[in-house]
Amino acid sequence: MDSQRSIYLKTITIDQALGKMLGEINAGDLVGREVVPSHQALGRVTAGPVRARYSSPTFHSAAMDGVAVRAQSTFTAREDNPVILHKEKDYVEINTGNALPADMDCVIMVEKINQEDKDSISIEHPAYPWQNVRRIGEDIVATELLLPRNHEISAYDIGVLLSGGIWEVDVYEQVGIHVIPTGDEVLDFTSRPDPSPGQVIESNSQVLAAMARSWGCRFSRTPPVQDEPEKLEKALQEALDSRAHIVVIGAGSSAGSKDYTRRIIQEKGRVLVHGLKAMPGKPTVLGISHNNKILVGAPGYPVSSVICFEQILKPLVYHLSGKSPEEQVTVEARLTRKIPSRLGMEEFLRVSLGRVGEQYVATPLPRGAGMMTTLTRAQGMARIPVDLEGMQQDRTIEVQLLRRPREINQVLVAVGSHDNTVDFLANELAMCSPPVRLASTHVGSMGGITAIRQGTAHMAGIHLFDPESGDYNFPFLDKYAPDLEYRLINLAVRHQGLMVLPGNPKNILSPQDLARDDVKFINRQKGAGTRILLDHHLQLAGISPDQVQGYSHEEYTHMGVAVNVLSHTADCGLGIKAAAEALGLDFVPLARERYDLLIPACFIQDDKVVQVLNLLGARDFKAGIESLGGYETALTGREMEPGMGL
Amino acid sequence: MDSQRSIYLKTITIDQALGKMLGEINAGDLVGREVVPSHQALGRVTAGPVRARYSSPTFHSAAMDGVAVRAQSTFTAREDNPVILHKEKDYVEINTGNALPADMDCVIMVEKINQEDKDSISIEHPAYPWQNVRRIGEDIVATELLLPRNHEISAYDIGVLLSGGIWEVDVYEQVGIHVIPTGDEVLDFTSRPDPSPGQVIESNSQVLAAMARSWGCRFSRTPPVQDEPEKLEKALQEALDSRAHIVVIGAGSSAGSKDYTRRIIQEKGRVLVHGLKAMPGKPTVLGISHNNKILVGAPGYPVSSVICFEQILKPLVYHLSGKSPEEQVTVEARLTRKIPSRLGMEEFLRVSLGRVGEQYVATPLPRGAGMMTTLTRAQGMARIPVDLEGMQQDRTIEVQLLRRPREINQVLVAVGSHDNTVDFLANELAMCSPPVRLASTHVGSMGGITAIRQGTAHMAGIHLFDPESGDYNFPFLDKYAPDLEYRLINLAVRHQGLMVLPGNPKNILSPQDLARDDVKFINRQKGAGTRILLDHHLQLAGISPDQVQGYSHEEYTHMGVAVNVLSHTADCGLGIKAAAEALGLDFVPLARERYDLLIPACFIQDDKVVQVLNLLGARDFKAGIESLGGYETALTGREMEPGMGL
Repeated sequence: MDSQRSIYLKTITIDQALGKMLGEINAGDLVGREVVPSHQALGRVTAGPVRARYSSPTFHSAAMDGVAVRAQSTFTAREDNPVILHKEKDYVEINTGNALPADMDCVIMVEKINQEDKDSISIEHPAYPWQNVRRIGEDIVATELLLPRNHEISAYDIGVLLSGGIWEVDVYEQVGIHVIPTGDEVLDFTSRPDPSPGQVIESNSQVLAAMARSWGCRFSRTPPVQDEPEKLEKALQEALDSRAHIVVIGAGSSAGSKDYTRRIIQEKGRVLVHGLKAMPGKPTVLGISHNNKILVGAPGYPVSSVICFEQILKPLVYHLSGKSPEEQVTVEARLTRKIPSRLGMEEFLRVSLGRVGEQYVATPLPRGAGMMTTLTRAQGMARIPVDLEGMQQDRTIEVQLLRRPREINQVLVAVGSHDNTVDFLANELAMCSPPVRLASTHVGSMGGITAIRQGTAHMAGIHLFDPESGDYNFPFLDKYAPDLEYRLINLAVRHQGLMVLPGNPKNILSPQDLARDDVKFINRQKGAGTRILLDHHLQLAGISPDQVQGYSHEEYTHMGVAVNVLSHTADCGLGIKAAAEALGLDFVPLARERYDLLIPACFIQDDKVVQVLNLLGARDFKAGIESLGGYETALTGREMEPGMGL
Repeated sequence: MDSQRSIYLKTITIDQALGKMLGEINAGDLVGREVVPSHQALGRVTAGPVRARYSSPTFHSAAMDGVAVRAQSTFTAREDNPVILHKEKDYVEINTGNALPADMDCVIMVEKINQEDKDSISIEHPAYPWQNVRRIGEDIVATELLLPRNHEISAYDIGVLLSGGIWEVDVYEQVGIHVIPTGDEVLDFTSRPDPSPGQVIESNSQVLAAMARSWGCRFSRTPPVQDEPEKLEKALQEALDSRAHIVVIGAGSSAGSKDYTRRIIQEKGRVLVHGLKAMPGKPTVLGISHNNKILVGAPGYPVSSVICFEQILKPLVYHLSGKSPEEQVTVEARLTRKIPSRLGMEEFLRVSLGRVGEQYVATPLPRGAGMMTTLTRAQGMARIPVDLEGMQQDRTIEVQLLRRPREINQVLVAVGSHDNTVDFLANELAMCSPPVRLASTHVGSMGGITAIRQGTAHMAGIHLFDPESGDYNFPFLDKYAPDLEYRLINLAVRHQGLMVLPGNPKNILSPQDLARDDVKFINRQKGAGTRILLDHHLQLAGISPDQVQGYSHEEYTHMGVAVNVLSHTADCGLGIKAAAEALGLDFVPLARERYDLLIPACFIQDDKVVQVLNLLGARDFKAGIESLGGYETALTGREMEPGMGL
């Protein structure tokens, strides 16, 4: 295709790549030292031992409010024979922290004193020397070691440094990271761009900026550079001449015809690694520049770049700054689905994680390297080792938490049909106190029933119409979950219909039109209530599935179907009115249906479920749902019973 | 004493105090909203739901490097019947991320293509529609909910916001904390003061500043204000008129004659709490100003103020900022000593925490509220509940970690005699990779043997001279730990002697002088090797303990003894030369002795112990010890055997 095409070196694992880099880097040579004011040294790492200049306290001081006395003058005091002491001569009033007068050696607390008159007191118990006195150096002795070298300075340490008279402290420089985003197609976010087809907003550099800040780094950035070797060379040379210790080139590290990163790193230094046994994250380049700086060619896909930043860059930064790496908190979780994985690649799988009953439950999120939202939606990351080809459903996997353990306990796991009211509910739950995080996986109504039966979800949204009885959901539960104890609560009655382009250019008005030659349909996945509804209406219209073009093309959500229509991928799809309205599509109503929440009896008292039920009963919540368009809330929050129908 | 004296209200627990404050605060009224650039929003909390403006991708794009084609044109391709495609007409070269041409619907990856000539390729397998294509909205669909309200923005979220075309985000204001340090005795650290007796360097405000930063707050500070009601009133009014939401008055919250905090809070608002059932931390005042800001009178002692900041202020800040509180990681640990505690007070006990064998071991650190170094030395904090009067040795207690779990595993627990070389060793260990943190508790040589026997320490520094055999340590181990399997490694031979004021004004030259009427002695605690050495030399000199003034006054470390002499509390004490030199005291040599490390056989392979042994063998380490003064290193690092003596 192109003679410029680079190829990967032999791919190696992340651990091997890190080992290779650490073997070449001399942190002491690369990162210098600087002197910073102690009170601004939070999170910095000491470059040498720090010793106290002053003792603390620097004097004998009162540890209580009361009077300072000579202990000897009190030795005969008894309850039946109090000792009278005279102001100034025998005692001095003293507050906590005051210096002890030179001729006094202890403090009697105010509660143990009887004021006789203005100038005299009596006491009934003897005092002992140094009673209630903080002596010189009680906390810090001048010259003592306050902090060893390589110590990360805490808030407490700042108090100790100042108390010991240390105004400035010798620390390692902050590690400097400079990033150069590249690509003809990328737009600089600072110009608030409006992307045309073929253009993307550059955001990876800002994800790295935020990470760098939390790692305690300095951060700098070149505006995006076009895919021209000369421009890239100039930007890289400037970065290498700057104070940065690490230079990251964003994108261009793969094997496309415009991927210049490896070549430019080779020009400016040595390439040590090209290609990781990691998915996402494979197209990573690592090298060392001629002036011994660290060079990183980061992948362009957002999730790949995050893997490169967190798995490679972060350990390098912690190594350079002398900090001990952060703990990774992990839990064992049950996998709700089978996941395939490529042998020879370590896979970083984002999962939705929740605690259902006694177990953690991990549901894999979409795996595309471009799916940045999988990171924001995930509660955990599972690593599937290089030597595995995948993992079976119900297997226990180790999941590294991306959120705090307490937040995982606040995750309400919903598996089932998708509806826009579920997103609305998610937002309302996030505003509760404490906030509840709704993790919903869309596998259709039948998938929801299966998840509830297996104990891997707290609730499932289902809307299964049974033409025989004219009832919703109960007939399916009787059949597929006969032993389940559950409650069925209505979330809303919703309008389903055909979503078409604005103005309905193909004039699609009923299921009959789906059989037309010029109409391309987009379907929902098997087990989805909406697909069952379609099948029912096709049957009523006397149309068989093979008459419908696109019947076998599947999407998993209403919004997914709507996007197909909006993008002309299909002419028409069945879905809810709210999805059509959100994307400005026209909507041909077809049916009303009941969307219910299936909740096992054992979770009905769960705090998170209780929050859901409270919300469903609230007037504001119902008004909010109705404002989405295409919903009725007469049944919302009511417990459903068999035979109720609509 | 003073008519101004305030008294505590009925003291209440920390939980009760927090409940009282939270009941009075309306976070929504107190903390406003502001708009910040998305890329600078790390750690901020959304004030409303955020929806995408753009889809991501905004166009169908290639997910692989290769060629874009129409799937239909490939349907007949077989290995034995390849399809020939022509450039521009049938295919277009495309890189990952490029927009798919309008009339193409899939991408064939470069590896699956045979280049026939410059303008044509052949393929051997059919492609299917949308293969290797990222479709519009695959990651983000315009209008979809990106972040709910009350969501703390992560680095990932920044990537998603920018990709969704959100340049600015509506967040809650940062909580503003203003602090006013008070006290006639406090010196402002910014003037780099040299404290005289009666003066202390104000550092609590900077501990709070660092904490505030890590809580995501704005922070401001008034320079220290003297104990004059008018000045305090003026400073407080200015703070209440500022943007701060919380105003902290440092010190002056107790019951001394100059403690104006409660009165001034009463003037500017309402006092809700004065006095916590907490030790340290009792003298805390909490109130609400007339303009609904939070008023805090923090205790003056550094550890008390930390308890007030972390237990009261931090939960209030997290409540105001809409963040979920941080997790507190706790472990179960075995208590190495009995600890008394006051019934009716919750005690916050700083502990040194390490993992010895299979158990965590917690050793209480000194409990004074002025001992800031106990916080920097502690690995954990134990809370002794209000309803307990103390805890027995060997009891299991819950300890909240102040450091990361991995750092706890890097703690080498040493319990035994104190020596300055142990501090030196601590510093050297901190510089190892990974750093080892030496937590040493000074309970004397005999206490060290006991700790090793009980399995609550990795090693013990001991220097027990047996006059009968003329040998060190082994005779005592034979007697007190007959079943122990151990190794005894020499750390150093050290010089013990009498520490006296510079110039030796009382002309103290030998143990005989300790019996003089004009000589006041300061002793070490029972079980200390140095005390055993003293007793031996007193016996040789024919002097009985009751002839020695101050024999019963005890200190726990060499430095403690030295401080007594420096501060004229005593005229003389027995200790090591390094301690005398550190404080500029004169030193009258009395004896050389062997200071050995007792290490149970089961820990001799422990990584941390191995680090110690490596260090002891290093030339630099020995040179470092000798430079302390009063040490010989001929035996350092060598394994000792019975009968070796000196």
